[in-house]
Amino acid sequence: MENTIETTFRVRYAETDQMGIVHHAAYIVWLEEGRSAWMRAQGTSYAQFEADGLRLAVSEVHVRYHRAAHYDEPVTIRCWVTDLKSRQLSFNYLVFGTDPAQPFLTGHTKHICLDTTGRVTTIPATWHTYLSQASAV
Amino acid sequence: MENTIETTFRVRYAETDQMGIVHHAAYIVWLEEGRSAWMRAQGTSYAQFEADGLRLAVSEVHVRYHRAAHYDEPVTIRCWVTDLKSRQLSFNYLVFGTDPAQPFLTGHTKHICLDTTGRVTTIPATWHTYLSQASAV
Amino acid sequence: MENTIETTFRVRYAETDQMGIVHHAAYIVWLEEGRSAWMRAQGTSYAQFEADGLRLAVSEVHVRYHRAAHYDEPVTIRCWVTDLKSRQLSFNYLVFGTDPAQPFLTGHTKHICLDTTGRVTTIPATWHTYLSQASAV
Amino acid sequence: MENTIETTFRVRYAETDQMGIVHHAAYIVWLEEGRSAWMRAQGTSYAQFEADGLRLAVSEVHVRYHRAAHYDEPVTIRCWVTDLKSRQLSFNYLVFGTDPAQPFLTGHTKHICLDTTGRVTTIPATWHTYLSQASAV
Repeated sequence: MENTIETTFRVRYAETDQMGIVHHAAYIVWLEEGRSAWMRAQGTSYAQFEADGLRLAVSEVHVRYHRAAHYDEPVTIRCWVTDLKSRQLSFNYLVFGTDPAQPFLTGHTKHICLDTTGRVTTIPATWHTYLSQASAV
Repeated sequence: MENTIETTFRVRYAETDQMGIVHHAAYIVWLEEGRSAWMRAQGTSYAQFEADGLRLAVSEVHVRYHRAAHYDEPVTIRCWVTDLKSRQLSFNYLVFGTDPAQPFLTGHTKHICLDTTGRVTTIPATWHTYLSQASAV
Repeated sequence: MENTIETTFRVRYAETDQMGIVHHAAYIVWLEEGRSAWMRAQGTSYAQFEADGLRLAVSEVHVRYHRAAHYDEPVTIRCWVTDLKSRQLSFNYLVFGTDPAQPFLTGHTKHICLDTTGRVTTIPATWHTYLSQASAV
Repeated sequence: MENTIETTFRVRYAETDQMGIVHHAAYIVWLEEGRSAWMRAQGTSYAQFEADGLRLAVSEVHVRYHRAAHYDEPVTIRCWVTDLKSRQLSFNYLVFGTDPAQPFLTGHTKHICLDTTGRVTTIPATWHTYLSQASAV
């Protein structure tokens, strides 16, 4: 298990706006795709997390936009877990095209574990062990 | 209860694309807003329909795009129910800016009634009466 | 050059709605991804088409939804060009998960060629030859 | 001219996700609607800003999610300009349902002024005076 993973896809036309670049909200969806890919890279999935009666709600988004992505170009989301605690965790991100040193976006998101009723809950031991092994690498 | 209702809102910046006009998928979301407004105009809501354990799944979308809407301009969704049957119904739409004779879009959508397990079900009598009274006006 | 192409990606979490399935407007964006992939499969791109001062505006969408796609599952867009004319063309689609015989969606879209001012224009000979060779296969 | 403005609209069904609440990226689009409403409240519009050959690119988003919004409920975006400088400005936000003391979201966004080629440029004097009068109130 690797903590830092990458997933690459092309910019969709619907993600552009009339400024001729990717709309800033589209990147927020991409970060979520990074998290989905991270879970799959650990051999599980966020779908399984939900099937276990758990939710990871987003509690904070802090991102900086450094340059604009354009339609049809490949975009890579690099992400890794930080600050895993009993009921929450964070992800850091680097979003880039061909050169990680010239990123489109850097930032992090914070997440809190909820049960199906929306109440804050402790990340179950099996999942916590799983996540900590991955993020310790 | 009036069958034909109208709801108006302004085009969002995020709904534009790099062609400088509203992206064609944004109109599909607007039609749904028309349906939500239609339900509210009948004195109920689609939220109540779901609270009653029902779902109206979209089974068909057929729309024609006649001219393009632009950022910040007011858009009106005019819609009305057609073809109410025991398990399905249709909505017709006229989407325009200031002049209904120069619409952005015309079209219809078909919907089928599901229960919470996703199975096709009969629209309950109370709801069917309700919808038919509205659509008969 | 093959007229019928396929592109596969996973359902994004943001594409689901509170019905627990993919929102019907998300498929419309996927069809556009199919068209982008079709252009790339011909050795060019829609970005190049736009760089040549042309636009392919969507003039009609007609789709039927047969079953629902869910978060994280792979979705394949199969599409091919039909009805190539001097100023317009159509795409047909089959959207499915693992079995093309059990599709999520079938349908078609119509497109009209515009210049950068939004006026209807003839598809230039070079592009028309290009598209017709692909769609004749 | 008032610096602090409010705009209210209902949550769209398409903005929900399978968690049964509004998807976190939808709020980012709402903040932009707040900015559009702010410009209109000053008697101008962001469309006019763009017509003058200017762009306000988003350079930073920092938001905290406090509670979840649900389909069909009214949402109010309260926003105001802070830190107006020669080439950039910030907006602060409070997003709530019925009670501002129980917000869905708090946060701010930073924006940088670009010309049509995407280069950072000084906010022209007329616009700067305009914005500063509004934000000084």
